[in-house]
Parts: sequence; structure tokens; C-alpha cells
Amino acid sequence: MGNILIRHVDVVTLDDAGTILRDVDVAIEGRVIRAIGAAPPDFRADEVIEGTDHVAMPGFFNAHCHAPMTFERGWAEDLPLDRWFNERIWVAESALTEEDVYWGAALAACEMIRSGTVAFADHYFYMDRVAEVVEQSGLKAALTWCVFGIGAEAEIGPGLAGTIEFVKRWQGGADGRIRTLLGPHSPYVCPPDFLAEVATRAKDLGVGLHIHVAESQEQVQNSLRLHGRTPVAHLERLGVFDVPCIAAHCIYLTEDDRRILAERGVHVVQCPKTHLKLAMGTTPVPALLAQGVNVALGSDGPGSNNSMDMFEVARLAALIQKHALGDATVLPGDTVLRLATRNGARAMGFEESGVLAPGRPADLILVDFRRPHLRPRHSLIANLVYAACGGDVSHVIVDGRLLMRDGELLTLDEERILAEAERRAWRMVGEEMRIVREYRA
Amino acid sequence: MGNILIRHVDVVTLDDAGTILRDVDVAIEGRVIRAIGAAPPDFRADEVIEGTDHVAMPGFFNAHCHAPMTFERGWAEDLPLDRWFNERIWVAESALTEEDVYWGAALAACEMIRSGTVAFADHYFYMDRVAEVVEQSGLKAALTWCVFGIGAEAEIGPGLAGTIEFVKRWQGGADGRIRTLLGPHSPYVCPPDFLAEVATRAKDLGVGLHIHVAESQEQVQNSLRLHGRTPVAHLERLGVFDVPCIAAHCIYLTEDDRRILAERGVHVVQCPKTHLKLAMGTTPVPALLAQGVNVALGSDGPGSNNSMDMFEVARLAALIQKHALGDATVLPGDTVLRLATRNGARAMGFEESGVLAPGRPADLILVDFRRPHLRPRHSLIANLVYAACGGDVSHVIVDGRLLMRDGELLTLDEERILAEAERRAWRMVGEEMRIVREYRA
Repeated sequence: MGNILIRHVDVVTLDDAGTILRDVDVAIEGRVIRAIGAAPPDFRADEVIEGTDHVAMPGFFNAHCHAPMTFERGWAEDLPLDRWFNERIWVAESALTEEDVYWGAALAACEMIRSGTVAFADHYFYMDRVAEVVEQSGLKAALTWCVFGIGAEAEIGPGLAGTIEFVKRWQGGADGRIRTLLGPHSPYVCPPDFLAEVATRAKDLGVGLHIHVAESQEQVQNSLRLHGRTPVAHLERLGVFDVPCIAAHCIYLTEDDRRILAERGVHVVQCPKTHLKLAMGTTPVPALLAQGVNVALGSDGPGSNNSMDMFEVARLAALIQKHALGDATVLPGDTVLRLATRNGARAMGFEESGVLAPGRPADLILVDFRRPHLRPRHSLIANLVYAACGGDVSHVIVDGRLLMRDGELLTLDEERILAEAERRAWRMVGEEMRIVREYRA
Repeated sequence: MGNILIRHVDVVTLDDAGTILRDVDVAIEGRVIRAIGAAPPDFRADEVIEGTDHVAMPGFFNAHCHAPMTFERGWAEDLPLDRWFNERIWVAESALTEEDVYWGAALAACEMIRSGTVAFADHYFYMDRVAEVVEQSGLKAALTWCVFGIGAEAEIGPGLAGTIEFVKRWQGGADGRIRTLLGPHSPYVCPPDFLAEVATRAKDLGVGLHIHVAESQEQVQNSLRLHGRTPVAHLERLGVFDVPCIAAHCIYLTEDDRRILAERGVHVVQCPKTHLKLAMGTTPVPALLAQGVNVALGSDGPGSNNSMDMFEVARLAALIQKHALGDATVLPGDTVLRLATRNGARAMGFEESGVLAPGRPADLILVDFRRPHLRPRHSLIANLVYAACGGDVSHVIVDGRLLMRDGELLTLDEERILAEAERRAWRMVGEEMRIVREYRA
């Protein structure tokens, strides 16, 4: 891996002070940023990138997604959550193959790199095949093989014992770019003793958990009825928060729930596009942030949000809160960019990433501002949050390695992936299908 | 103007039946579509476009915007409506020059063409300069010189008499690509007798009106207090709806208001991104559609929405309603694409446009689906509504003339426009400024 020098670039560091530097050089040595400002005299670049009229910023950490669900993009439209599960998503899984997972994740990797994502927290099945895509693509990832604990016929794959083997196989894999977690689906599907068992296993393995929490009022009501506790209190009591935990959605929360999430250091991930599209309400992000919860952002799977563009996710995170709270001043400035980068990196166990500074991992992107919708540049932040799109990303660097140069993917055979993924996705939805498990809130 | 043949393209016609054609040819003769399917034997193409893996659809009609406000993109962030007006927007206007309007509109034209807009309804000042941009760019437009009627010092330009001359100068201009309307700002700024006078003048001239309506609860309360009527009822009584009228926003409406808008054939324009960002609430689009109102979509000015990408506007129009009504099934399928094309065309007086069919004006765009976020293609509609971005547009054709070929702008000097607009926008916000008029709801 060679050294990279980016010249004459504007840098949005997202450091604590919100430092923005104009027309500076960024020197990348091996996997880390060596200098921002002027390159040290002894620095030798193997590759020089002209950064004039480009903005460098930390790459996105997509903290909750189901990447292989690219296969279901546009296949489950205009449906509420229960029908979305029972008529489409948990039906299509009956026709899903290991090979499909590989190509679905590869398609997602093309999309993620093109739109400036450097790492993703994936929650799906046949995760060895997703890990292969991580190895090949150069991305970073926190990988979770989703398990249900309600009988072998409801699992996609070998169940808990198998996913523990997956964790052992891949923890620290791909040159340290892979983290693994255990993934019980949710408190509304998984039985309490199963949740407790998974939490114990995670503790023994020294890994975290990744789970869906409190997506609807009905889920909360049923949890109160069945367990006498809200989903959050129920999970806490079962030991789920005794290990680092990524809790996706967390829409319907009591004050006590928010306190528990803050005290136990749970990483909450909002997926605003899914929340809007499936009419689910949304995560109370400003209240959680005020209580000190680490809130990150996720695209969710393309079966519900239809794309994995984290610029759009960050933008929607700001817009939905301003609207919901009737207050245009909430989540101001670069706040949502921080949620989508630093906070995601922290949730996924890449604590050093998400900030551009000397000594930090070189996980960064360049955004091409030679485009009419990004001019004038009164505010680089406002242009990034409210006008930029994934398609404006020109270069992506992960651990000091170029994954995209001027719009060209360097690690993946995109043309082949597009053709193969499309062929297989069409085959999958053309198969005879059966429901794999039933969603009951 | 030569004939164009687009080969092997998928076509989203947006006709009444929602016809979608796969792998067909589109023959464009002069300004109109001659055939979709196979080109007639006698058809001779001057230019052939290979459309494989592209989707043709009607171009967008942006039915409410302030294009030259590109100069204020990112310059008025995280503010509620009153502070947005009084601290930023109605202050910056004191430093605005005619020349600024030209370059601001030219920058917007680059952005609009790149993101698939073929026509825009613009409401601003020094509109002769915007008309020049329309002439040069090849776009279509419905142009309105905004007037206030509260004294010469509050006007930007020559006031009502001058805008009547503007209408006479430009109605039918640019080879019929320009329509003009009169533009009293709003019922909360314009005095009643002024509104009545403008309506009379519009009737005499045979043109319509373009106005802002019911953007906040306070505006409605003040209208009731001052005039004993809601803004909509007030405008109706003053004769504003006696001519074709584009009514932007229409957020706070009574049942009676909705009935009036339907009965009087008022064109309502929702601007969902501005509504979200300024925390304004939003237009009750499903209720209006159910009552037969022609609802169109607008980007609003880049000073509030930050971009003019109508894919995003259409997407937000669907998402905001699903969220607001708690119903994932509302505005399903291609509904929002119709609002953003056909309904906008109708609002702006280009009734023949917005549908791809033989005999219709060739106002269309190609979207490049050779991109990972637009695959697989289970549903072209879902991919267009929920995954596509302005940057995915490859070709733009207006009145049979190519304005963009494979991402290259053919009518505008983009590099010069970007540089000149940026220089002037920076100058503008660096000037000493004063408030031009005060916003009081």
C-alpha cells in the first residue's frame, strides 16, 4: 500500500472544534493520516490526487443495514411493517441462497463505495459470504449473522452455534477491517431465555450484539403485556446490554428507556428513510443526544429504504427532526454528519475513525464540488448536509487504500456484479416461495 | 433542430394507464415525439442515442422556485421562517443586482438541466434576466416578477406597472418556451386592494397569477383577525382565483379552503424540502388530490431547500405524507412522479407536456440505470421514486432539442457560470446590507 498525497483540498475534519481547513494538503502514510496542512519534508507520495474544488471529509459509517437486501430493492413497496414482513421480505428469504448473499452484498458494496461509505454494520444471513465481499472490496464492516431462536426451520443458516463459529472465524479478519457481533433478531421474535443465552455467549466471546428494538407501539404494548416491561427494560434485564450493543430503530421509548440506553452505553441507530417510508414514526434523536446516548445512522436494507446513500440518510435525519419537533433549529450544522461518521465508527468498534486528524486511520472521501448544486460555497457543511448526493463522491480511501479514484471502482468488477446480481435477483423473486416465519408485533 | 432516435430504451410514459414499455425506440421529429415502439419507415434520424439500460421519462416541471436564490444556498441555515426572512433573505436582497440575477439563474439552469428538470415556474426579481437564461439554456419556464404593493422602497424593480411591461415583452417568448404570470408576493404582505388590482390586470392581460399562500398557522390567524377570512377565502373574494393561479405551499387549510381550491381550479404547489427544513408542517396533498385539486411539486429557492433536484422533491413528497398520516400506502407507485411532471406542466400552462406519447412535445429525460443503486430493476418506478438522484440523468431533451448529452451541457458555458456565480455570490453577502421589508405573519 503506497503513500497518498491529496493537494489543495478543503478539509471538513469533524473534530471536536469543527475545524474546517481550506486549500491544504493531506498526507497519508500507509494506513494513517500523517499530516493535514503541509506534507512533512520527508514525505514521499506514491500517488498524488489534485484536490482543487474538492472537499475531504471522514467516510460514512453505515451503522445498521442488510446489504444483500439489494435483491429486494423495489420489490416491497408502499406497505406497512407487518405486511412488508409477512407478504414480501420473510417470504423472499425462502428462495435466498448463499450465492445470492454474496452477489447482493457485492452490489451493495459497489453502491456504498460510490456513495462515500467506508464501513457498514451488516445484519443478515450466510455472513461468511458478506465477509468475502468485505475482504475483496477493501471496506470495513461489523458483521452479524441474524438468529431467531424459535426453531431451526425459522433460521437461515446454522443457528446460534453456527454464528458463534462465524464470529470466531472472522473477528479481526480482512487485515483487521472486520469486527463481528452476535445478532438476535429482536425482543419481539426471540424468546427471553434465548436472548439471555446469546448475551452470555457474546460476553464469553468478547464481542457485542446487534439487535432491532422498539419499532412500533404494538411491539411496546405486547412487551408490556407479555413481559411486564418495555422492550428496552426487558433487554436490559436479560443482560443484552452487558456487552456493547447496537440497537437499531428505538422509536418508541419511555423516559426510563432513554435513561437505560444512556447509562448502559447502548449505541442507538436511527434509519430515517425506512422510518418515513414505512410510516413507523422515528427515533427521538435530539432527546437521546441530550442524555448522552451515542446515536448513529443507518440506511437499513434496500428492501425498505431503497438505497444506501448516507448523504441522504444524514439529510433525512435532520429534516425529520425539524419537522417532527416543529423546530428548524434542532440538529443544526454538522451534527448529522457526526452521527453518520464518528458516532457510527464508535458503535461499530472503529473508535479511531470518523475524524480527520494526524494519526487517525485514513478512512476518508473526496466530494467533487465542481457541480452547480454545490456552489456557491458559503457553507461547506450546509452544502454537504442539504445538497450533496452519493454521486458527488469522487474518491474513497479506506485504511489508506484507494477504493475509488475519480469515479472508478478499483477493487470490484462492477459490470459483472451488476449483471450477475440482477440475474439472480430476478430468479429469486421468480421462485416458488413460502413464508419463513410470521411477524407478530 | 434535427430528428433524434433513442434506441432500445425502457420508457415510463406516465400516461393515464401508467404504461411502461421495455426495450423500444423513441422517434423525435422536430419538437414532438413521433413514435414510441418502432420508428416509422420514413423516419430519418440526425442523431442516434443508444438507450440500453437507460429509462426515458417525462422531464420534471418544477412548479415553484426562485432560481436566482442559488446565491443564498447555504447562507440561511437552521432558522425558522420569520428569522429566515428577517435576518437573511430579505436582507440579502438589498445587495442584489440585475447582473446577480442573471448569473444566479444561469447557475440554477445548469443544476436544473443536470438533474432532469425541463421547465421551471420562477418567482423573483429582474425577470428579464431570467428570461435571457431561459432563451439561452433551452429550458421552458413560467416567469413571474414578484411585487409587494407596499411602497416603492419595498419593491425590487419597477413595481406592478413594470412587471406588466415584462409580461407583455416575454409572453410566448423564446420560441414559445416562455409563459409569464403576475406575481403578488402573498396575502400576508400585499394589501387587499393591491391583490384585487393585480388580479384585474392579469385578467386583462390574459395571464395567470403565482402567489405564496398559508405557510403558517400565524398567517391564517392574522388573516382571520384582519380580514375575517382564511388566506384562501380572502384571495378568492379579491378575485385572485378568477384567473389561473399557482398557489405555493397551502399548508394550513380548512375544509372550505380545500373546496375553494378545487372548485376554482387553483394549482397548488407543495415544496416538501422547504417545509421540512423550516419546520413549517406541509401541504395536505392526499386530501387535496382526493378533492380533485391539481397538486404539483416545487423545489422552492436554494436559499431554503438548498438544491433543485426534483427526484429528491418527489421522493420527499411521498415520504412526508406516509410519515405525517402514519400510512405507508398513501401516494403509492408513480403518483409523486405525476405530480412532478404532468401536474406541474398543467400548472405552468404547458398542458401537452408531462406524458410521453406520439404527438406530445419532446420534453423528456434519460436516466442511466447502469449504476448499482438502480439495480435490480424489479420496479422502474420504485427505483426512480426512492433510489434515483438528479445526478443519474444522462440526457435532457426540451422541445426536441438536446440540452444535455451523456452528462455534457450543450447550451450553457458551465465552467464560466460556476466561477462567475460563486464570485458574485460571495460579493453579495460581503456587502453592507439593510432589511428591505419586514416579515410579520
